[in-house]
Amino acid sequence: MALKLYGAPMSTCTSRVLTCLHEKDLDFELVLVDLFAGEHKQPPFLAKNPFGQIPALEDDDLTIFESRAITSYVAEKFKETGYDLTRHQNIKEAALVKVWTEVESQQFHPAIAPIIFQFFVAPLQGNSPDQIIIDTNLEKLGKVLDIYEAKLTSTKYLAGDFYSLADLHHLPYAYYLMKTPAASVVNERPHVKAWWEDISTRPAFKKVAEGMNFGEK
Amino acid sequence: MALKLYGAPMSTCTSRVLTCLHEKDLDFELVLVDLFAGEHKQPPFLAKNPFGQIPALEDDDLTIFESRAITSYVAEKFKETGYDLTRHQNIKEAALVKVWTEVESQQFHPAIAPIIFQFFVAPLQGNSPDQIIIDTNLEKLGKVLDIYEAKLTSTKYLAGDFYSLADLHHLPYAYYLMKTPAASVVNERPHVKAWWEDISTRPAFKKVAEGMNFGEK
Repeated sequence: MALKLYGAPMSTCTSRVLTCLHEKDLDFELVLVDLFAGEHKQPPFLAKNPFGQIPALEDDDLTIFESRAITSYVAEKFKETGYDLTRHQNIKEAALVKVWTEVESQQFHPAIAPIIFQFFVAPLQGNSPDQIIIDTNLEKLGKVLDIYEAKLTSTKYLAGDFYSLADLHHLPYAYYLMKTPAASVVNERPHVKAWWEDISTRPAFKKVAEGMNFGEK
Repeated sequence: MALKLYGAPMSTCTSRVLTCLHEKDLDFELVLVDLFAGEHKQPPFLAKNPFGQIPALEDDDLTIFESRAITSYVAEKFKETGYDLTRHQNIKEAALVKVWTEVESQQFHPAIAPIIFQFFVAPLQGNSPDQIIIDTNLEKLGKVLDIYEAKLTSTKYLAGDFYSLADLHHLPYAYYLMKTPAASVVNERPHVKAWWEDISTRPAFKKVAEGMNFGEK
């Protein structure tokens, strides 16, 4: 049975999983969840994810959610297929993938998520972006990216000289950020900028980015 | 060579890793990092973790940080030793451990961390706890725990009928929460309360909790 991904292409967390599925060259069916109709808060979807958030993945009789858990499951189950996202044959490199995957989750995400919310979600809710929230979080994000800048002077990617899940997890939020004036936080840091240009032009993500039109007409 | 953990027993993230090391019955050396002297922001520690946060783990010539990456590395490298925290022999159960580990990280942690900060860290910095921040986040935490309550009616632990890394990761923050008036958010939910009493009385955590005296004289 094919994998079934429940989500929406414009969603950051769905596109994180889509990028992983493409890197692994997997066949899957994308089942659209209509966020504007609140389908993710209705019982059929809540049975897949009680938190009412997309995406969710069905693999035969297993249903899982949380985008980073899904990518980790997919990368591990299909470790011999497509691109190796976890360096599963080298325990030290695999450990560094885990470290920088957690850095995305605990350091990068909490700073970038409120910025993307203000630029893209607030206007859909009829509010102007709150510049104080944007500035406060841009300062936090800048500090995180200062550390990335230093790291990327010694290795080509975050976990080492290999593209991995750790880099991939950054793509969706950074993609939206780069469409805003806050893109300067990336562009002002030469190694971060080069890293971004490298990872965002991989064929797997370019395919996903075509569907990422959050907040656009 | 023995594992070396750099941290402080009162720190939530250090105690998360300590609990994992005890569950795995591993020998290790705890190297104390003096937070009050700012040792974690000095070059020797920054060489281990550029974000200047404890803990960091040295395993021979490998140095890693981020508590959840460390527990995942330890649980996987030593999968045949001590208690099986990842259900590594069953890909479906292992996937559910990943899911609920991410739930802790993305849903539980962002709600509980500001509460613990207000109760324990703010007073050390000479500030009174901000009741608005506490109340706002207690409401968020309550919604997360409503979902835990429903889940724990059907399985004994979060990922299934087995204790795992997903449960373990909750211990340090919940331990401090239970010392505050906000403990009611757990105690009012009978299945969450029973789960908490079960996981917090495991010998591995009881040993760690003895050193968790954050903010106490």
